[in-house]
Amino acid sequence: MKVGIINVTGYAGAEVARILSRHEEVEITCVTGRSGAGKNLGDIFPHLSNLDMEISPDLDKSVDFVFSALPHAASAEALKEAVSSGIKGVDISADFRIRDLNTYSEWYDVEHPCPELMESSVYGLPELHRSEIKDCQIAANPGCYPTASILGLAPALEAGIIEPEVIVDAKSGVSGAGRSLSLKIHYSEVNENISAYGLDGHRHMPEISQELDLLSAQHVNLTFLPHLIPMTRGILASCYAPLKDNYIANTSDLKSAVKALYKDFYKDEKFTHVVDTPPMTKHTLGSNDCIIYPTVDIRAGRLMVVSCIDNLVKGAAGQAIQNMNIMCGMPEDSGLNQLAIYP
Amino acid sequence: MKVGIINVTGYAGAEVARILSRHEEVEITCVTGRSGAGKNLGDIFPHLSNLDMEISPDLDKSVDFVFSALPHAASAEALKEAVSSGIKGVDISADFRIRDLNTYSEWYDVEHPCPELMESSVYGLPELHRSEIKDCQIAANPGCYPTASILGLAPALEAGIIEPEVIVDAKSGVSGAGRSLSLKIHYSEVNENISAYGLDGHRHMPEISQELDLLSAQHVNLTFLPHLIPMTRGILASCYAPLKDNYIANTSDLKSAVKALYKDFYKDEKFTHVVDTPPMTKHTLGSNDCIIYPTVDIRAGRLMVVSCIDNLVKGAAGQAIQNMNIMCGMPEDSGLNQLAIYP
Amino acid sequence: MKVGIINVTGYAGAEVARILSRHEEVEITCVTGRSGAGKNLGDIFPHLSNLDMEISPDLDKSVDFVFSALPHAASAEALKEAVSSGIKGVDISADFRIRDLNTYSEWYDVEHPCPELMESSVYGLPELHRSEIKDCQIAANPGCYPTASILGLAPALEAGIIEPEVIVDAKSGVSGAGRSLSLKIHYSEVNENISAYGLDGHRHMPEISQELDLLSAQHVNLTFLPHLIPMTRGILASCYAPLKDNYIANTSDLKSAVKALYKDFYKDEKFTHVVDTPPMTKHTLGSNDCIIYPTVDIRAGRLMVVSCIDNLVKGAAGQAIQNMNIMCGMPEDSGLNQLAIYP
Amino acid sequence: MKVGIINVTGYAGAEVARILSRHEEVEITCVTGRSGAGKNLGDIFPHLSNLDMEISPDLDKSVDFVFSALPHAASAEALKEAVSSGIKGVDISADFRIRDLNTYSEWYDVEHPCPELMESSVYGLPELHRSEIKDCQIAANPGCYPTASILGLAPALEAGIIEPEVIVDAKSGVSGAGRSLSLKIHYSEVNENISAYGLDGHRHMPEISQELDLLSAQHVNLTFLPHLIPMTRGILASCYAPLKDNYIANTSDLKSAVKALYKDFYKDEKFTHVVDTPPMTKHTLGSNDCIIYPTVDIRAGRLMVVSCIDNLVKGAAGQAIQNMNIMCGMPEDSGLNQLAIYP
Repeated sequence: MKVGIINVTGYAGAEVARILSRHEEVEITCVTGRSGAGKNLGDIFPHLSNLDMEISPDLDKSVDFVFSALPHAASAEALKEAVSSGIKGVDISADFRIRDLNTYSEWYDVEHPCPELMESSVYGLPELHRSEIKDCQIAANPGCYPTASILGLAPALEAGIIEPEVIVDAKSGVSGAGRSLSLKIHYSEVNENISAYGLDGHRHMPEISQELDLLSAQHVNLTFLPHLIPMTRGILASCYAPLKDNYIANTSDLKSAVKALYKDFYKDEKFTHVVDTPPMTKHTLGSNDCIIYPTVDIRAGRLMVVSCIDNLVKGAAGQAIQNMNIMCGMPEDSGLNQLAIYP
Repeated sequence: MKVGIINVTGYAGAEVARILSRHEEVEITCVTGRSGAGKNLGDIFPHLSNLDMEISPDLDKSVDFVFSALPHAASAEALKEAVSSGIKGVDISADFRIRDLNTYSEWYDVEHPCPELMESSVYGLPELHRSEIKDCQIAANPGCYPTASILGLAPALEAGIIEPEVIVDAKSGVSGAGRSLSLKIHYSEVNENISAYGLDGHRHMPEISQELDLLSAQHVNLTFLPHLIPMTRGILASCYAPLKDNYIANTSDLKSAVKALYKDFYKDEKFTHVVDTPPMTKHTLGSNDCIIYPTVDIRAGRLMVVSCIDNLVKGAAGQAIQNMNIMCGMPEDSGLNQLAIYP
Repeated sequence: MKVGIINVTGYAGAEVARILSRHEEVEITCVTGRSGAGKNLGDIFPHLSNLDMEISPDLDKSVDFVFSALPHAASAEALKEAVSSGIKGVDISADFRIRDLNTYSEWYDVEHPCPELMESSVYGLPELHRSEIKDCQIAANPGCYPTASILGLAPALEAGIIEPEVIVDAKSGVSGAGRSLSLKIHYSEVNENISAYGLDGHRHMPEISQELDLLSAQHVNLTFLPHLIPMTRGILASCYAPLKDNYIANTSDLKSAVKALYKDFYKDEKFTHVVDTPPMTKHTLGSNDCIIYPTVDIRAGRLMVVSCIDNLVKGAAGQAIQNMNIMCGMPEDSGLNQLAIYP
Repeated sequence: MKVGIINVTGYAGAEVARILSRHEEVEITCVTGRSGAGKNLGDIFPHLSNLDMEISPDLDKSVDFVFSALPHAASAEALKEAVSSGIKGVDISADFRIRDLNTYSEWYDVEHPCPELMESSVYGLPELHRSEIKDCQIAANPGCYPTASILGLAPALEAGIIEPEVIVDAKSGVSGAGRSLSLKIHYSEVNENISAYGLDGHRHMPEISQELDLLSAQHVNLTFLPHLIPMTRGILASCYAPLKDNYIANTSDLKSAVKALYKDFYKDEKFTHVVDTPPMTKHTLGSNDCIIYPTVDIRAGRLMVVSCIDNLVKGAAGQAIQNMNIMCGMPEDSGLNQLAIYP
């Protein structure tokens, strides 16, 4: 299968290339980039020198499948063209994530470039939407924060054991901010430093909200606050919600019950694991795993869930490839069974 | 004034020495340490070589004031002896923080060594207890997490604008874990990594709880979850609580109202500042400042407060010296007006 | 092929397990550990949970090949036993690296436990000793610093273009110091900090010296100084030596000539690459590559070579597996073709 | 004394402001910036909020002394104007460091803007040029690398114990690269990474070379190679040179002799200390100290010196203030006696 990567020159695009280099059933035949067109991929990313590919200005339409790692709006435009040529794809941007187009416009400050494609696209979180992903033309690859947050809360919401009052306090490494220059992600400004950001609203909030509402029987009153952490990769989301009174009253061992519920929910998943000891982001470095630790603050009657991913793998490129595998009928973990690198 | 430091060989004790070296009204005349006794302080901490002091096994009783940076239980014992010689002091351990001795025993796994001294000790958070600190014999220097958390929530609780349903998600640099060896704070294990810890309860919870309850008219249902961050110094506490319905209904501009309330609360403070842009821990590095940014998640009706300190200064040694200044009638900022080091 | 790993509970042993998990021609059938015996490997290293192996106290002698990641002396003892059962192996400790037993004793403060095995062992740097490695019983896996340093200097020494006055200034991430507790590798002590160490002599010096002398026609007067850098993985060795006067006199474009010489020397190597832009350690993270940039300080007439590896892969576990592949007649890159993870 | 800071919006300028805020004999009355003109200094650098100063577009000529932290060429222009108004100053740029104007032009790609001021300027390294600094109009504040390197080599060169074959392998934190945006100092590119740079020549080389030649009786054949290290502040320079044969032959204990020579050379210095254990950059964080550890590689007959500074203090702002103190007849350590912050 011939695969193309649109905008390989960002971190997500480069990570798709890195992982696909070991996927035995696909061959990368075209990589595009704007500034980098004409250069060898290895000139920009020496770790990809082995691929020995030239960056094209445009997508070669002979590919069978395409990943778009363009910024939003530009990404939908590019995929529109590909899809019209009969090529399936995964959109790593936000363009097809938000199902309500008004919400999309409100948060992304642009009219959706191709509303007509919404119907053939699916929110690409396999753990929740696997069967629809199988048949879609475009999988809308979830954001990094939403992946960790939604997977951390899905079992509890689906089981109806929590009140719809949810707080997600998320912490991310700096690579999530991409490769564009900004003083905020300058080394000397980030190192030995933590900060909260997006205090007036972050674009991943409506995306998380959409999926939590779907999982729950009612609207979830969500607060989402992201933080920038001095490390390159990794997201840890700490999720809090009050357990329902009747669940507390009728459950003898809350911690065990919650853990059992979570383990059952993800029992068939290859990448999402419920673990018995509190996880660290480093246990996911370079792997497509999401590791989840649910527990209960007994005194306060609150569910606490800690969820960890590598933001560039399960939070971007790895999940994109997982979606491709599903869309193309390949084993879901093809090319994705690398263990985390530790320490 | 002659000052002694008991257990100068930990990070908090060494930081007391560093800051006091520039305090014009005191002279450090005795520093003690267990393992280091007999060595020059500069052999253990080269940055303190200029002080040119020998580490004693025991406190020289001729000091006028003492800081104890011993572990809990041992600290109370040492202070008992000093106080019986008429020396005032600041306890940097947890021994005199928890006013309820059963709670102390429950969380610290030991009977309190000198309950008779509880009455002459005060919880040493100047912003809340300044007048009592003036006259106490022992100031119980608050924990690092409690300092950031309580200062972040005090104005809202005192004003009664939030429901007593509080979540504190706190992030700390590694120096808070001290100098004792542990695989958990080994460089290769912490670097490029975040984790939550204390998921079954952290000792700073009852301390925060005690002060929040005091500030509020009712019991505050608190969840406190700390996280270990790959940096040396700094604590950022993100605090969440629902605003009361009537406050929301009767307030036209919630964000501004909350900010004004916070600014008013701390208007006379030298070290605790309410700021207009989201703060970073690095803006406090090496300084005794606590910087606080209160805002509102309008959609969710929740107060969000971000509070930052240097855990070894306002969260330990600096606040200890602030307490000494108050107890001894010196200007509260003597020796403490160093600006943060940035970047 | 059944493989055992002795002392899987250190970083090098765990890394052998991680890499072998994707090696298609071998199966790990036994992992041993001292403190961890009886536990599941995933309890100690969660990133290895998938392997689902129990740690044994002793090696199961039914393996076909063994890696020993024990400390020196203990490692030789363990391998002696294995070899006597007809098992080949790679020793990741220093025991079989130093060919002169007096030098070994001098630097490692112990008599060599099994001098009789020296003859059947080979210094396991494939780029220099591939043909002997093929037929040995024990490959002495090179140290991390020696790997980067020797590969950085070999082409120049073999070609005889430099004077035998060599300085290697090497910088290493902290994982090279292992998992044992020590204040020196405590997070708060290493972060935001650089230091030189081993100023009175480092054990990797005689190892580097041995190989440089072999490559050169005369004794190389070597100074080797290692530095500890605030990062987890990676070694960068900066190597300096005066170019011979006649080489300078007879060469029109020194930089190009040196680069061509280096490229030719490594032209058939799968893992050691001579690159055209100065390399970074991060370009090797998680991969078995050694990337080398040779150039000339024209004004000073000196060769400068920068050489980078991942200390736990090409500097330990990866090279150990490369040696196994050679010893067992498998393709040299089996299980080792993972690209570096960037950023 | 009224002091102005030209271009306060870079790291060096901001650091001058931070340190001067505690200097009891001066008052900062004017700070200028290009992009930041009209803003409050605290808007750009929150840690300087206490100063409560507005950034001016131009220098107020009523100041008594000025620091210029502009880039080269622009800095000389600005100082020319100030000097013509009778104001003395310190130039933190490179404009007056290189005494030979052809060398300056060759390395800085610009004709010197005011060669007529060279005579009234002095290379501002107090340890070597104190008496001339006293009477100069402009002190050319040394570069960060040159400060560490020259101080590390001066005693040996002046005493004539080494051959003029010197290698300086220097490692710097990222703040030395300033606040301008560049992918090379983007967090994700620098973190967990080391690289060498300036392999075709670095501008600090001729500056170091000039001073080494002055100290020595002959031309010193210098190789200087800088490295970028994942930390914010700090420079460690490792210096290597062969000891002269006759010095080796006539000296019974080389290590002790060299150390004694160094201690004697710096015996009257307040900031440059020869220490007995290998230093770390962190022992200088935020302080104006340079700490130096000289030793000998006995086997190789080479001097090795490790020299550490905080690149923004002794390597920039602190040394600039030290120069001001000397030029203005104040105690040399006024405002500069802060201890390093550790850990």
